[in-house]
Amino acid sequence: MAFSPLVEQLITALRCLPGVGPKSAQRMALHLLERDRDGGLYLAQMLERSLDEVGQCRMCRTLTEEDICSLCRSERRSDETLCVVETPADQIAMEQAGGFNGRYFILTGHLSPIDGIGPEALGLEQLRQRLESSDIKELILATNPTVEGEATAHYIAEMVRDLPVSVSRLAHGIPVGGELEYIDGGTLSRALAGRLPMTE
Amino acid sequence: MAFSPLVEQLITALRCLPGVGPKSAQRMALHLLERDRDGGLYLAQMLERSLDEVGQCRMCRTLTEEDICSLCRSERRSDETLCVVETPADQIAMEQAGGFNGRYFILTGHLSPIDGIGPEALGLEQLRQRLESSDIKELILATNPTVEGEATAHYIAEMVRDLPVSVSRLAHGIPVGGELEYIDGGTLSRALAGRLPMTE
Ligand SMILES: [Zn+2]
Ligand SMILES: [Zn+2]
Repeated sequence: MAFSPLVEQLITALRCLPGVGPKSAQRMALHLLERDRDGGLYLAQMLERSLDEVGQCRMCRTLTEEDICSLCRSERRSDETLCVVETPADQIAMEQAGGFNGRYFILTGHLSPIDGIGPEALGLEQLRQRLESSDIKELILATNPTVEGEATAHYIAEMVRDLPVSVSRLAHGIPVGGELEYIDGGTLSRALAGRLPMTE
Repeated sequence: MAFSPLVEQLITALRCLPGVGPKSAQRMALHLLERDRDGGLYLAQMLERSLDEVGQCRMCRTLTEEDICSLCRSERRSDETLCVVETPADQIAMEQAGGFNGRYFILTGHLSPIDGIGPEALGLEQLRQRLESSDIKELILATNPTVEGEATAHYIAEMVRDLPVSVSRLAHGIPVGGELEYIDGGTLSRALAGRLPMTE
């Protein structure tokens, strides 16, 4: 025995959410149907509206319902530095960390030939055109420190080699507050290689 | 800085799901917008349809889009036993456990005067009418073994005292496969009081 066909379909539909298995999908469906129909209806409406209206910013490719996002429109940001990240979530993380006041370019992923994700899917042609036609002096490649992220950074660095722009990469090292004992060897050797003189 | 207004609204809307905090709501919103728009749209449609069509079975009060649910309509179930549970999920758990072939009545909660949940909200008048006008010989009160569940069971037992129906409650005891060491004292003393002669 199971729930009624429509309730079962709702449970199945909830499985499209990341991290939601059969048990939590069931709990979610019953919660909405039994106790929070208003919340469920609001969720349905917001899903439909955002899936319909949210696209990519024409400048930086972040998720937005506007043609050009507020950060790209802002007059308080510097046009001399461009930070390349993999996802909108990475962009938010960079902004929350603070310390960067330039513009962004969001790849929406990383190079992954096995999944058919090549330079076009990441908008690299658009990135190059933007570098050619703007005042950008420094390109910060803030892709993830994974094999794919590194490969993507190297590909971009190669692609812009003939342009008058300096290319940098986020420093590797020990996380603030991290304990040496628990840090992997790769990170530790990078931190050692990148050691800096003590300042007072 | 945050996401665009519409993306933020979607993240907020996802928080209506039980067990979903700010971080997972963000991950869900980005996942749907970036990688699974079809899944998101299907979810929106199933939410709207089920919130619109799913109500309570007129006989047993379980969640269903039908007037009378398939279990209440089934001719293969006995009409002599009625099992009272708190929620549709409890009903599913009973069915999956097996061993019961009667009908159900779903309270959709338990008595909770502090939340304004009284006998009417649980359909107890409807339960009594059903007992008066049917062949039910045994009423199994399978409310949860919590303070509220026990109080609800006692209230119902009292309510049907004048009717020619025997009332029972699920046995308490050690869970199958449980280790004595980890079982709480209340359960253990109930298991001791309810001990049965060994059979070969
Ligand atoms: Zn933008
Ligand atoms: Zn029913």
